[in-house]
Amino acid sequence: MTYCVGLLLNEGMVCLSDTRTNAGLDNISTYRKMFSFEVPGERVILIMTAGSLSVTQTTIARLQEAMDHDEATPETSILLAPTLLKVAELVGNTLSWVRHEIDEKLAMSQGAHASMIVAGQRRGGAMRMFLIYPEGNFIEATEDTPFLQIGEHKYGKPILDRVVRPETSLHDAQKAVLLSMDSTLRSNLSVGMPLDLAVIEKDSLRVGMRRRIEAGDEGFRAMSEAWSTALRDGFARISI
Amino acid sequence: MTYCVGLLLNEGMVCLSDTRTNAGLDNISTYRKMFSFEVPGERVILIMTAGSLSVTQTTIARLQEAMDHDEATPETSILLAPTLLKVAELVGNTLSWVRHEIDEKLAMSQGAHASMIVAGQRRGGAMRMFLIYPEGNFIEATEDTPFLQIGEHKYGKPILDRVVRPETSLHDAQKAVLLSMDSTLRSNLSVGMPLDLAVIEKDSLRVGMRRRIEAGDEGFRAMSEAWSTALRDGFARISI
Repeated sequence: MTYCVGLLLNEGMVCLSDTRTNAGLDNISTYRKMFSFEVPGERVILIMTAGSLSVTQTTIARLQEAMDHDEATPETSILLAPTLLKVAELVGNTLSWVRHEIDEKLAMSQGAHASMIVAGQRRGGAMRMFLIYPEGNFIEATEDTPFLQIGEHKYGKPILDRVVRPETSLHDAQKAVLLSMDSTLRSNLSVGMPLDLAVIEKDSLRVGMRRRIEAGDEGFRAMSEAWSTALRDGFARISI
Repeated sequence: MTYCVGLLLNEGMVCLSDTRTNAGLDNISTYRKMFSFEVPGERVILIMTAGSLSVTQTTIARLQEAMDHDEATPETSILLAPTLLKVAELVGNTLSWVRHEIDEKLAMSQGAHASMIVAGQRRGGAMRMFLIYPEGNFIEATEDTPFLQIGEHKYGKPILDRVVRPETSLHDAQKAVLLSMDSTLRSNLSVGMPLDLAVIEKDSLRVGMRRRIEAGDEGFRAMSEAWSTALRDGFARISI
């Protein structure tokens, strides 16, 4: 499984994904689930993926092919698409096609499926973030719901529900997604280190900060322990 | 949906269930999901249920019928069964039969199903707690895993993972299950107040404390807010 989370805040966007992929419990590997596409100063697009690796890899490869094609048009390339909404549509359509192709091959009732988070901004446009469902349709993050999650999303949702608001700072937002991931890592074996963290500042039109957090990362371990201590202390102080 | 949680601790057992049932979003009702069966001083059995109401109600009714029957035997009545393991088997078998009956009526590929937590102790035996799967098989809580959950279990698992150990006191255990439920209520609309809380002290062979927590409960609200404050304070103090 997977856990990916994206925050759409007044100051910018924060995205975090794990890297664990498994086909059965004894075939666990590390795959990047976060992909960024930039035309610096013009647009930045970040895609995170969850679900069947065969579907997500093929979808990303198709999108890349369309971008690299000599005859790329605003109708086919997410780097040329006139709006972020159009980008989400392109990703959704590609995901839907790939899924159908693979489903036909598998000929199973419960075929391969995948979902994605697409976050980005183009010059002159607003920051936008979309969750693309396996069927290719999508929803968008809003002021009321400034975060989107895919994969094993439930363990890490309570902390986000409590602390993430549009006015949350990018610094606090990084803390929030890392603690949300920490709760997920502790409670679910199928989500694993290393992690990919990316921050896109509003109107910067590029991925400003990108960090891979490895399994032995001292800062992450310290934060995780500080959070455990804070939770236990808070728990001890509460009276019923 | 549902959220039920049971803790098996050195000092006793703590069980908590919500009461929301829905058949579609506009048909929400309150149903008790916690059922207790006692022969005071001889045995106490507590059953919590999740899943299709038609399955769980019929299963509980069948178990009750078997207990009330003039010719009840240790093979048919959970009040006469020689061990708690036998009780779990009886509940599992009944659940499995009822499910198959209803599945046949529904004739659907994705039929009705339900799961249950069975907690209890009989005179001379140890406290035991079982999670019964829809198919009727079950697992048991142990020293390493002193809690079981059914229904929407993911939101409320991180807090349990962090604070519940076999040596946790019954007082702290009540706090833990209530905070676990609080996280679930905040993050998932399909789990709802009122709540049923029960505490069985070790070797007491009866439900020592039983409490229904209504939607407006002042103590629960205060605890929920204190926990929110503790989380936010803890979050603010953490540095990355």
